[in-house]
Amino acid sequence: MQRYKSMGNFAALELRIIPFCLKLTMSKEKQQTSISELGEFGLIDRLTKNIHLKNKSTIKGVGDDAAILDYKDKQIVVSTDLLTEGIHFNLMYVPLKHLGYKAVIVNLSDVCAMNAVPKQITVNIALSSKFSVEAVEELYSGIHLACEKYGVDLVGGDTTSSLTGLTISISVLGEIKNENIVYRSGAKPTDLLCVTGDLGGAYMGLQLLERENEVFKGNENLQPQLEGYDYILERQLKPEARVDIVSAFRETGIKPTSMIDISDGLSSEIMHLCKNSNVGCNLYEDKIPMDSQTKKMAEELNINPLVAALNGGEDYELLFTISLEDYEKIKLDPDFTIIGHMTEPSEGSNLVTTSGSAIPLQAQGWNHGK
Amino acid sequence: MQRYKSMGNFAALELRIIPFCLKLTMSKEKQQTSISELGEFGLIDRLTKNIHLKNKSTIKGVGDDAAILDYKDKQIVVSTDLLTEGIHFNLMYVPLKHLGYKAVIVNLSDVCAMNAVPKQITVNIALSSKFSVEAVEELYSGIHLACEKYGVDLVGGDTTSSLTGLTISISVLGEIKNENIVYRSGAKPTDLLCVTGDLGGAYMGLQLLERENEVFKGNENLQPQLEGYDYILERQLKPEARVDIVSAFRETGIKPTSMIDISDGLSSEIMHLCKNSNVGCNLYEDKIPMDSQTKKMAEELNINPLVAALNGGEDYELLFTISLEDYEKIKLDPDFTIIGHMTEPSEGSNLVTTSGSAIPLQAQGWNHGK
Repeated sequence: MQRYKSMGNFAALELRIIPFCLKLTMSKEKQQTSISELGEFGLIDRLTKNIHLKNKSTIKGVGDDAAILDYKDKQIVVSTDLLTEGIHFNLMYVPLKHLGYKAVIVNLSDVCAMNAVPKQITVNIALSSKFSVEAVEELYSGIHLACEKYGVDLVGGDTTSSLTGLTISISVLGEIKNENIVYRSGAKPTDLLCVTGDLGGAYMGLQLLERENEVFKGNENLQPQLEGYDYILERQLKPEARVDIVSAFRETGIKPTSMIDISDGLSSEIMHLCKNSNVGCNLYEDKIPMDSQTKKMAEELNINPLVAALNGGEDYELLFTISLEDYEKIKLDPDFTIIGHMTEPSEGSNLVTTSGSAIPLQAQGWNHGK
Repeated sequence: MQRYKSMGNFAALELRIIPFCLKLTMSKEKQQTSISELGEFGLIDRLTKNIHLKNKSTIKGVGDDAAILDYKDKQIVVSTDLLTEGIHFNLMYVPLKHLGYKAVIVNLSDVCAMNAVPKQITVNIALSSKFSVEAVEELYSGIHLACEKYGVDLVGGDTTSSLTGLTISISVLGEIKNENIVYRSGAKPTDLLCVTGDLGGAYMGLQLLERENEVFKGNENLQPQLEGYDYILERQLKPEARVDIVSAFRETGIKPTSMIDISDGLSSEIMHLCKNSNVGCNLYEDKIPMDSQTKKMAEELNINPLVAALNGGEDYELLFTISLEDYEKIKLDPDFTIIGHMTEPSEGSNLVTTSGSAIPLQAQGWNHGK
């Protein structure tokens, strides 16, 4: 049941030849076409020509003023995210294909966090004239790959210019039966706090990429040293959305009392659950699941691995609470780790350290403007 | 039935005090708060605190990983658009409140073009550190105003940083009964080609704003000369979505055979209808509706007003075809102008000039990259 971790490298995304990719994708070896040669409509035709609709709920996809969907008796889940160059990604070490893939995953993960199944996405992209048609196609190839893997239809969007850089805005629609919806607000004191997978890996992968990028900037002949860190690089460059967990909940008859996905870091997400559910929480330091590569990289870079797990973010694992009576259903599943329990709101949200002391958790959102 | 035109100025958007607004909204007279003071979560709280849901189909709006909607037996229309600073708008002469309003309208118009009713939007905004909290609130006040006026719920979104400038990405969801959907693809030869309102005004309004901006850059003490051009300025800065036309279609029992909204210009939109419906078209120059201010401004700037109507775009009027038998239903309605008719595809798409010669129409999308 270690679902994604055991999948190993995802062949279609060539993880090994990635870093410092802008140079690769922009190299003269591959024919580059300026977007102005194709024009807006030519570019859209080229990017959408291979779309095949997969879901019954998709009545009409790309090609009109809007898409038409039909969810019949289901309810619709909608979410949206925006990624900007230089803030959310650095094209020096994030390949365009991976970026497209990840931009979709970030959104699918939000739908999973409602206990729902993603079905359609729309994609808006703004790009400056430094991007060729081939570069945009590379980005879209990652988007299409994620759609293919998760059975999601790309049903609309806009591709337009920007004065500088690349911006990607994706919206996702998913479906769910009314009785299965899980909000952030249903946790009760004594509920168990659980997390899927392991944490901090995406953050440590990013630290590694940034370190190697600095080395590369100093001497372009040096090849990046990434051996032995496949897993944390994959966590950063090729995250997955836990649709498998949503299925597992259905199969085992578990309905979490509250749920959120881990995009900003465990600490901040726990505080969202506590605030929305009006409960407190004890999180146990020694229970937080971390991969050995995450710990090893943290040691190498002299970073406390706990910081990566608590504040690193981008793990896209699910954080949820279940009532005590569901404990038997999850205790043997290696995908789930119980990391704490909810308390009365007056007790606050605390990290209980290995030494037994309780430290109040602190939330972090973006602070790029600082 | 001249629905929007007779509404006059929209009091809540103070059209007269707009130009060169960045200086106004950024002036020291109004207290400015840096976004980093509030942080991401504080900013989101502040921007979403006054949202009151209006639609039965909105089960859960802002505040969780995703919104939840319920359309029951209706089908769902989804569309999305992205606007970037310096390409789609210039903050030297577009006030933030108007920009927010227009960004919503652009999307609602796409839903109208399917003959559907807009119900929910999501809003993604990326902004650089030059924007204060108050500036973002000003932008959101226009978004909220459009939501209020059109009875649309803001149900989600993301507010994040960018290295430079402002990007706005909005997605919209609407509802429609299956049998009422109008695609771009249903036009038949002999169908009448009709348009709502008048054309070219938004483009001439933009030309006026750009001229005055150039004057202002030359001498900041000169006040912009905008008198007598209220209508075309409104067309550019405060466009409306023709939800009233969608209602009128229901009331009068008209179902267009094809429809599109005019965002890129009449010429390009006609070609979309022709391509998707596999028909040709004769468009009559002398039938194209234009306001007297549009013509007057064109004359003043030595621009052929026909160019403004054909290629200007941003009018957000509806272009549609009806079968001949529906002619009686629309002939007396001042909101509709018959501007041509569809033909066999072999005849192509032509502009029939006042002198009687036929000139092939040419499509234009964006070409900002050129």
